[in-house]
Amino acid sequence: MGQNIEFQENQWNSTGLLTIAVDIGGSLAKLVFNPRNCRTLIFETVETEKITEFMQLIHRIIKEYNSGDQATTRIIATGGGAYKFNDLLRSEFPRVIEIARLDEMECLIKGLDFLIHEVPEEVFTYNDLDGEHVVVPEHAKVYPYMLVNIGSGVSISKVDSPTKFTRVGGSSLGGGTLWGLLSLITGARTYDEMLDWAHSGDNTNVDMLVGDIYGTDYGKIGLKSTHIASSFGKVFQRGTHAATADGVLSERPSQTSTEEIETRSRKFSNSDISKSLLYAISNNIGQIAYLQAKVHNVPNIYFGGSYIRGHLMTMNTLSYAINFWSNGKKQAFFLKHEGYLGAMGALLTFQDRSST
Amino acid sequence: MGQNIEFQENQWNSTGLLTIAVDIGGSLAKLVFNPRNCRTLIFETVETEKITEFMQLIHRIIKEYNSGDQATTRIIATGGGAYKFNDLLRSEFPRVIEIARLDEMECLIKGLDFLIHEVPEEVFTYNDLDGEHVVVPEHAKVYPYMLVNIGSGVSISKVDSPTKFTRVGGSSLGGGTLWGLLSLITGARTYDEMLDWAHSGDNTNVDMLVGDIYGTDYGKIGLKSTHIASSFGKVFQRGTHAATADGVLSERPSQTSTEEIETRSRKFSNSDISKSLLYAISNNIGQIAYLQAKVHNVPNIYFGGSYIRGHLMTMNTLSYAINFWSNGKKQAFFLKHEGYLGAMGALLTFQDRSST
Repeated sequence: MGQNIEFQENQWNSTGLLTIAVDIGGSLAKLVFNPRNCRTLIFETVETEKITEFMQLIHRIIKEYNSGDQATTRIIATGGGAYKFNDLLRSEFPRVIEIARLDEMECLIKGLDFLIHEVPEEVFTYNDLDGEHVVVPEHAKVYPYMLVNIGSGVSISKVDSPTKFTRVGGSSLGGGTLWGLLSLITGARTYDEMLDWAHSGDNTNVDMLVGDIYGTDYGKIGLKSTHIASSFGKVFQRGTHAATADGVLSERPSQTSTEEIETRSRKFSNSDISKSLLYAISNNIGQIAYLQAKVHNVPNIYFGGSYIRGHLMTMNTLSYAINFWSNGKKQAFFLKHEGYLGAMGALLTFQDRSST
Repeated sequence: MGQNIEFQENQWNSTGLLTIAVDIGGSLAKLVFNPRNCRTLIFETVETEKITEFMQLIHRIIKEYNSGDQATTRIIATGGGAYKFNDLLRSEFPRVIEIARLDEMECLIKGLDFLIHEVPEEVFTYNDLDGEHVVVPEHAKVYPYMLVNIGSGVSISKVDSPTKFTRVGGSSLGGGTLWGLLSLITGARTYDEMLDWAHSGDNTNVDMLVGDIYGTDYGKIGLKSTHIASSFGKVFQRGTHAATADGVLSERPSQTSTEEIETRSRKFSNSDISKSLLYAISNNIGQIAYLQAKVHNVPNIYFGGSYIRGHLMTMNTLSYAINFWSNGKKQAFFLKHEGYLGAMGALLTFQDRSST
């Protein structure tokens, strides 16, 4: 699960304590900790709905890395779950030195600032044409920036310095929307299943393109005929066609058996649907992020959160949207540890590192 | 289909011609015409996929209102279909005086300008608290404004005067997306079926609210616990629960029979899903419209297009979004003939009215 970070020297943990930082979001619960006398940061993720599994994971970590001694263990919690599961944490770990609760935004910013400046090859740009390029940002160039954190939903913040930031907006159309709608339509049960489908799909079977409406390139509104005019815009038409022409039962969407999936997929395949919705959600986040960056006159946009999952198609779509809307004036940045900004920031707040 | 407009006196049609203005979009083909020596404007709409029906409608109108005489009939076409179906129009109506093709944006603006200034009780504001209020705009107050036209997709224009306007953006998440996704998930076959479902639904069964994540009001980020954090954010969790706990086949979404719809709806009802998606799409359009209005420093936002269909829940959601994001600084306006801006503008361009 984790993408651990190894440092040249042990700059961590001069205290005798084991500090475990947890960031419990709507869909995923993440943690990071640094074993004593060790140069490694260890990251783990569990689905929030399996919160008891997450608690057991913390117990295992205390057992394995601190010989089960809660008395020399500290838990730092952030994210919404730090509030929702506060009582659960206290009843599970009654003897820890403390269970601290930290503001989510502060942790996100602090974690991102650390990753940008102290973790080599953490920040990169990506698009299908140019591929991946690692970015080594000079501190001067970093601020101000927009942080777009994409989890179940989306939060957008303007960051002026490690300590000065404002939440400027967000969107309810995030990872939870993509996975929720796709699992409803396709019956998929894992993220990776849906991402694999998206990869092999052809969205033009379900999306209405400018060319589908104009029947030709239509330069006047500055949109190519291949531009998506309406996500899923072909479905209702062909759906109603199917209902009238080919008979309702055999042609309407269904996930109740392989047979019926095949019958239905003659109309709309899970792959095409998955790609279309991945495009729609990612494009939309990219546009809103651009507009917020434009309103606040900020050139650089960092995308974090577990939605991205290092998926190239997702990053390309976000990059494309930022480039399209800003005419190349704004830049999208991605992170190797995109999902761990909050947990990382929470750890840093209490971890008295020898370098500080 | 039409919501015809009756005028005090016949200011129309001093020529001997019958002019039929058509606006053919990605999903709906609309037309408006004024019978000779008559004070009424007649509006009609047909689904674009039934384009032959639309052609037959035009034939019937020529027959009924111009004794079938194409030689004294003029057809003015706008919208994408004016390009896509140009050849079809010419082969269907070879003897009409002319088939003119007009730019979509110009027609939208011209049509809106006419409706605002010359049709009584056309423009109104709406939200659930205050209800509907008819607006009588003084000309001075009208410009500049944003025009958000919501059809299959969304186009957003900044309008400085009846003749000066720019398309500033748009979104692929529009009417086609709502109807397409809902028909895929629920098997619904009509708009009204879906709107009825939405009306009786409870989106909190599928949407993840701030309170679901934080377990309490969380003032710090300025969001109520009832705020939607992630549209459909509860689905994937409960979906995977269903898949593991209750068995996949019986609990996964299905539209193949009433029985199975009932089995499935124990998990997610068509009503809850319809309301959630209507909220998600409308909120998103509202946010993007607000951000564009903010970028271009324009206070008033007119919503047109056939997506709205006079549906109160849709208008309330758009109004709420504009008010929420702008802190009450920007205002959403709606129109009785929301779907006919383009057709109206096309008619006006060639209709030499006695008043002009």
